[in-house]
Amino acid sequence: MSLEAIKYNGHKLQILNQLLLPFQSVYEEISGHQNAWDAIRSMKVRGAPAIAIVGTLSVALELKDQDFQDGESGRQALLSNVTSMFEHLKTARPTAVNIAEAADRFINRTSELLKKLLDNKTNGIRDILILEMERMLPDDIATNKAIGKHGAQRILEHCKNDRATILTHCNTGSLATAGYGTALGVVRVLHETGRLEHVYCTETRPYNQGARLTAYELVQDQLPGTLVCDSMGALLMKERKISAVVVGADRVVSNGDTANKIGTYQLAIAAKYHNIPFYIASPLKTIDFRLKSGDQITIEERPANEMVCLGGQRIAADGIGVWNPAFDVTPAELITGGIITEKGVCAANCLKFLQC
Amino acid sequence: MSLEAIKYNGHKLQILNQLLLPFQSVYEEISGHQNAWDAIRSMKVRGAPAIAIVGTLSVALELKDQDFQDGESGRQALLSNVTSMFEHLKTARPTAVNIAEAADRFINRTSELLKKLLDNKTNGIRDILILEMERMLPDDIATNKAIGKHGAQRILEHCKNDRATILTHCNTGSLATAGYGTALGVVRVLHETGRLEHVYCTETRPYNQGARLTAYELVQDQLPGTLVCDSMGALLMKERKISAVVVGADRVVSNGDTANKIGTYQLAIAAKYHNIPFYIASPLKTIDFRLKSGDQITIEERPANEMVCLGGQRIAADGIGVWNPAFDVTPAELITGGIITEKGVCAANCLKFLQC
Repeated sequence: MSLEAIKYNGHKLQILNQLLLPFQSVYEEISGHQNAWDAIRSMKVRGAPAIAIVGTLSVALELKDQDFQDGESGRQALLSNVTSMFEHLKTARPTAVNIAEAADRFINRTSELLKKLLDNKTNGIRDILILEMERMLPDDIATNKAIGKHGAQRILEHCKNDRATILTHCNTGSLATAGYGTALGVVRVLHETGRLEHVYCTETRPYNQGARLTAYELVQDQLPGTLVCDSMGALLMKERKISAVVVGADRVVSNGDTANKIGTYQLAIAAKYHNIPFYIASPLKTIDFRLKSGDQITIEERPANEMVCLGGQRIAADGIGVWNPAFDVTPAELITGGIITEKGVCAANCLKFLQC
Repeated sequence: MSLEAIKYNGHKLQILNQLLLPFQSVYEEISGHQNAWDAIRSMKVRGAPAIAIVGTLSVALELKDQDFQDGESGRQALLSNVTSMFEHLKTARPTAVNIAEAADRFINRTSELLKKLLDNKTNGIRDILILEMERMLPDDIATNKAIGKHGAQRILEHCKNDRATILTHCNTGSLATAGYGTALGVVRVLHETGRLEHVYCTETRPYNQGARLTAYELVQDQLPGTLVCDSMGALLMKERKISAVVVGADRVVSNGDTANKIGTYQLAIAAKYHNIPFYIASPLKTIDFRLKSGDQITIEERPANEMVCLGGQRIAADGIGVWNPAFDVTPAELITGGIITEKGVCAANCLKFLQC
């Protein structure tokens, strides 16, 4: 059983407070949507899929306690409540796309059900919605497990050894998703099937998601793992028989170019130099077919203090200027292994065939 | 005038305490060789050339206060004192090659002078030795300025713009040498001649010499500089019109392969991918003609706590394994700009012509 960052049993929702990781593992109860909003805003929960799921489940929980009358006023109250809770949740993190997508989807779905199911009781429609919201958690885990299975299978096909050694970057595990993880899901499948030789994770400066979160997941789940600095990737590829580099994605666009955590591009160049396959592990919904190429992706720059301070302590000379881009774009030509999705592994330059 | 990390006026030797940098700039007096040993051992002074110079000047200062009789016993006392002081200094940092080289050189030189100058007074021979020891400081600075001049000239020849933008790694400046620096010497010449557009320095995990020391030198000398994480080099090359990457060397071997701070290899691969010239700035004495290729260089691995702790604070999950190589070897084929020495810039695969 892999680490559970979101626990939900239909009556109670709990999240692992990521602000306290890796030094304390404390679960906190989320009792309703305002509580979820606070947890998302303060980054107790992070990772785009995880944010969307926690937000949606908090709405589901709150709806369970609400009683809606039949007839027009009750039906309007249901739509109005769903809409206001989700619209509020959207404002917790302005750049979190997944919660906005989930919000719009469930608001539209509520309208649709109210129009279609004219003879149903309002509370019956409420219950259908709750069931659909509750599907997000197992669906995301199922997606990640499918990604893990397809990725592990492909890596082993191209791996000269019986067991694979993986290099990954940032955190793409249970802590960023509903559970199991995307790139880390591939690592977990390899481990569960006895085919993981070793996994290396980078620190992932400047936020250290690798050192804090991925390393924590590896230790918790007893995966054979080692932490390295971001600058050590190339030497690792030369010295340690890396079978594949597998990372996640913030956004994949039509031509296969992929935006991901800063440092991904540099690792992809090093992998190409060493003839090591480079994979992106990404659910299909992270592919943005509206954009044609990576040039169209704007690179977000973060504040200087997020690089030069650590735990409230300054770690760089006073007065120095800082450039702090949060992610970079890896061109499709460097994604030599392919894009691992829940439907299978697709060559980075063939994504257009998935669209239809 | 660039930052002075070693101040010496013939009567008084002072060093900038690097343990307090970048937050405090405190000069400490070194009164003799035991004092120098302590400063080297505790890393108040670091950087192979700087260690050798501080050690040697401390011996020179101590010799000035010693009176040697003429005749065999006085001559033996001179040799014995020089030998014992230098042998002790060699033990301060076991891996510091330059102080060992200087120690052996001056012990041999003392024997040689004693044999050659049979008619001279012992104190006269002592004074010749002191003068030769005192030459190390201006000689190293002159070497670095020559490296700076040759490097700047070559970079500008191959630079499409009027002014150059440089990316460097680790600290190769005044704080690692007698002054001015090697790779940072190139940057200083560009700046002094009005041809430096900008310099980017990497944090250089896990010891943060870039964030702490190079950034400090840039701020002190008012060079137009920006700090980036080690993972940002490739994106920087793609986005910011980098004219050249220039780094220092721990050891260059006969075929041009170069050992330097961990992360150098990864930057060199990224530079090749972007067709950006990659230079090593290295005094001739750092070239080790005894070794044929980089495969023969042993890579030192450092303790885990140097990566997972910062300022006494743990920054990674408990229980995670760590791989912490201190440097890597960049093959000559990636040193596309060449090796910048005090005699000029040499193609990395042509070093053998310098040997004769």
